[in-house]
Amino acid sequence: MTCQICSWDSGNSDHKFIYQTNYWRVVLAPNQALLGRCVLHLLRHEPQLSGLTTAEHSDWFTLVKALEAALRSAFNSTLFNWSCYMNHAYRENPPNPHVHWWIVPRYDHPFDLLGMQFADPDFGSPYDHSRRIELPDVAYKEIAYRIIEALRF
Amino acid sequence: MTCQICSWDSGNSDHKFIYQTNYWRVVLAPNQALLGRCVLHLLRHEPQLSGLTTAEHSDWFTLVKALEAALRSAFNSTLFNWSCYMNHAYRENPPNPHVHWWIVPRYDHPFDLLGMQFADPDFGSPYDHSRRIELPDVAYKEIAYRIIEALRF
Repeated sequence: MTCQICSWDSGNSDHKFIYQTNYWRVVLAPNQALLGRCVLHLLRHEPQLSGLTTAEHSDWFTLVKALEAALRSAFNSTLFNWSCYMNHAYRENPPNPHVHWWIVPRYDHPFDLLGMQFADPDFGSPYDHSRRIELPDVAYKEIAYRIIEALRF
Repeated sequence: MTCQICSWDSGNSDHKFIYQTNYWRVVLAPNQALLGRCVLHLLRHEPQLSGLTTAEHSDWFTLVKALEAALRSAFNSTLFNWSCYMNHAYRENPPNPHVHWWIVPRYDHPFDLLGMQFADPDFGSPYDHSRRIELPDVAYKEIAYRIIEALRF
């Protein structure tokens, strides 16, 4: 069975590289309808959140703190929705889940970037997974670069 | 400002008590459309996930492992959606968020309990927050008790 997370490589233009620790890789999510949305891939193929080692789990929390601060600094995000779901893996039979976290910034105000306005029409509620925007490749790079610039450990 | 989590007490019939550690309280969510859905309240009023102490964070992960195992044992849950969102707090001005986690079990099969059948029509996708069921008080107690019985640390 193929695992899209295990087979990610740095040439992956849909999930641009942002940062890597000993245990996790941070990539930019392809859907930037909520500006700064990222995915954290566990570097090891592990199907369940409860299967993380203490080191993996502690390292994840270091990233929680660093990413929240970076996204606030880069885009003035208001709050962050964190989730570990893995629903899509269960559309396959047999399922082949791989632990990953979503960090989805939320905004109580619009934010202008590269002449575009990013908004959060569902602020105060769970975000609408179906709301998508398409951006030129240069915009994904600009967003990724601004997060990288703002990261402090 | 009132905080519903800080003002929770053991007489709260909407969020029945399940377990408490030094840092977290586990309660049953009022909406059991996904059987076994629970909320983990941080015992201290802290607005941001990144504000957790190392002890609070490590203790949470102990609960992740214990609750996943308990819900699998009690209800044969297939997987778990974990989230820390706090969107509703931002409907107030000023917002007064308090860190809490949702654990939402997901099912690739129906499960019968007390003569009722619990299903997961959105399995493989994010769950539908608007799908709600009403249960008699005795059913909430039965669900909470089965989780308590299955918890092992």
